[in-house]
Amino acid sequence: MNKSIKAVVYERHGNPPDVLRVETQPWPKAATGEAVVQMLAAPINPADLNQIDGKYPVRFPLPATPGFEGAGLVVDVGKNVKDLAVGALVILPHNLGTWREAAAVKAGELVTVPPAIDPVHAAMLKINPMTAWRLLHDYVDLKKGDWLIQNAANSAAGSAVIQIAHELGYKTINVVRRAELIDELRSKGGDVVFVDGEDLREEVKSATDDAPIRLGLNAVGGDSALCLANCLAPGSTLVTFGAMSLQPLKIPNGLLIFKDLRFRGIWINKWYDNATTEERMDAFRPLFEMAKRGLLKAKVEKAYPLNDAKAAVVDAARGKRSGKIIFKFE
Amino acid sequence: MNKSIKAVVYERHGNPPDVLRVETQPWPKAATGEAVVQMLAAPINPADLNQIDGKYPVRFPLPATPGFEGAGLVVDVGKNVKDLAVGALVILPHNLGTWREAAAVKAGELVTVPPAIDPVHAAMLKINPMTAWRLLHDYVDLKKGDWLIQNAANSAAGSAVIQIAHELGYKTINVVRRAELIDELRSKGGDVVFVDGEDLREEVKSATDDAPIRLGLNAVGGDSALCLANCLAPGSTLVTFGAMSLQPLKIPNGLLIFKDLRFRGIWINKWYDNATTEERMDAFRPLFEMAKRGLLKAKVEKAYPLNDAKAAVVDAARGKRSGKIIFKFE
Repeated sequence: MNKSIKAVVYERHGNPPDVLRVETQPWPKAATGEAVVQMLAAPINPADLNQIDGKYPVRFPLPATPGFEGAGLVVDVGKNVKDLAVGALVILPHNLGTWREAAAVKAGELVTVPPAIDPVHAAMLKINPMTAWRLLHDYVDLKKGDWLIQNAANSAAGSAVIQIAHELGYKTINVVRRAELIDELRSKGGDVVFVDGEDLREEVKSATDDAPIRLGLNAVGGDSALCLANCLAPGSTLVTFGAMSLQPLKIPNGLLIFKDLRFRGIWINKWYDNATTEERMDAFRPLFEMAKRGLLKAKVEKAYPLNDAKAAVVDAARGKRSGKIIFKFE
Repeated sequence: MNKSIKAVVYERHGNPPDVLRVETQPWPKAATGEAVVQMLAAPINPADLNQIDGKYPVRFPLPATPGFEGAGLVVDVGKNVKDLAVGALVILPHNLGTWREAAAVKAGELVTVPPAIDPVHAAMLKINPMTAWRLLHDYVDLKKGDWLIQNAANSAAGSAVIQIAHELGYKTINVVRRAELIDELRSKGGDVVFVDGEDLREEVKSATDDAPIRLGLNAVGGDSALCLANCLAPGSTLVTFGAMSLQPLKIPNGLLIFKDLRFRGIWINKWYDNATTEERMDAFRPLFEMAKRGLLKAKVEKAYPLNDAKAAVVDAARGKRSGKIIFKFE
């Protein structure tokens, strides 16, 4: 076992490739109640880049290590650690910084993953699939056969929404910006896929036989959010979890007053902060079952070693990618 | 008793003074389960003008008589009418058209008002005070001493919010556009009154000792709504019930995602459509008790006879008034 680890660190907020460096740190030790986890994979999410840039609403004390998400192997456990064995594959909590070769973590904050799930796959279940799970459970009481609508349907979260909704028997209307995504999303289980446009509402009406759509999921903001809202039935809810357009929602007063639409948002890290272990596991269990069957898999465009962190964050910040940029550890 | 009545009627939607006329109709008869109500007072609300203009989301079949609100005396009852006697002062339902001298109404849709309450006062309890009651009960579970914030605090609904909140032990932050309203709103029980401006958030923080504000009430929309939202604590709700600025809400995505703000709306006529008699009376009872003590009284600028309906709606459409324009019947 190494005597030291490498970790990505920033000492001031700013443009990620400018402020990140890779440093050597002592190999972590497991205090009482802790486990040492050797990292296997950690993705670069947009929230990580915002956090390094200082644009994220919560800042880690500096110097800090980025990385809200990741998975690794338990290689050591301290005293008073139960239900966690050396060799277990685990998902890490979001408040620690996953872009490091190893970390000492409170055992209660680790989520054990069934060994049948690949570590790269496990490393990306915590944010997008869990967001999708919560979006489909916490806002509107859906029943089998009910419709929902989402934009940015080809995002990692959108793809998880399609698969989980399909699993639960809900039907999805998926809005994307490029026609070439239609077949792919249909093959994942998307019931209807539309390219965003002015006649969206009419297209949706006709595809759903004018069924009420009671849940909208918005990862874009701006005009796209309003298009979704206009497709919803009275009394429905639009939940915002991303803001790809960087544009605010523009909500005509009548949608609130006369149509009784409800506008909510979700911040998955906050959900984790408030959730009990039981609440987390109630959601992770079915997500793991789906993952075992090869579902909820985020596409990876490229894996970098931790030493190439600067190149990796530049790559992750590019607009058009075919999949996630991740760190893979040796 | 008259053999005929006068009623305001429109046969097509359009600018109210252009499309309204006063016509003579036969005196109404009480069918089984109905009562005949002789009207005493009916206000002209903004929603009435919008409805005549065709801008309201629900249209009455044409020809129609306007008027969502009003009060009168029961002068006759049909068969099978219980709990309603000739001579009772009653509030009329919203879907009938109150701008007429008399109407036959299903007895179950009438709300009996204690005789100590003046008919003009009674005629304006159904929309604004009830909206205020619902705003303070249906969205956030407030406790005594909790703060809320509202704009357009000098409107009829705003004034009702101040008085009901004061009655229930909640504290109000009241935002207005003119400094000369400050004393008046304080005398009604408003805890804090501010003139809308850029430093609202700081002023509010200092006036409330940075207490969390969990409910915002928006009758304006646009920038004013955003100012309120920015004053709210995480997880709070902004309820929209008016749109005086005619501007949509502009909601930065972060207020939804990271601050977990919830945006709702209320349409009081819809609430009446769905409420049980018991639910209505649970709210009317305390409103009547307040009204008996002289509270919840909308200021009246001018009372018109029904024959002057055209002049009355022109007067009601003016921007700056010191009180409501109403119809008073002889």
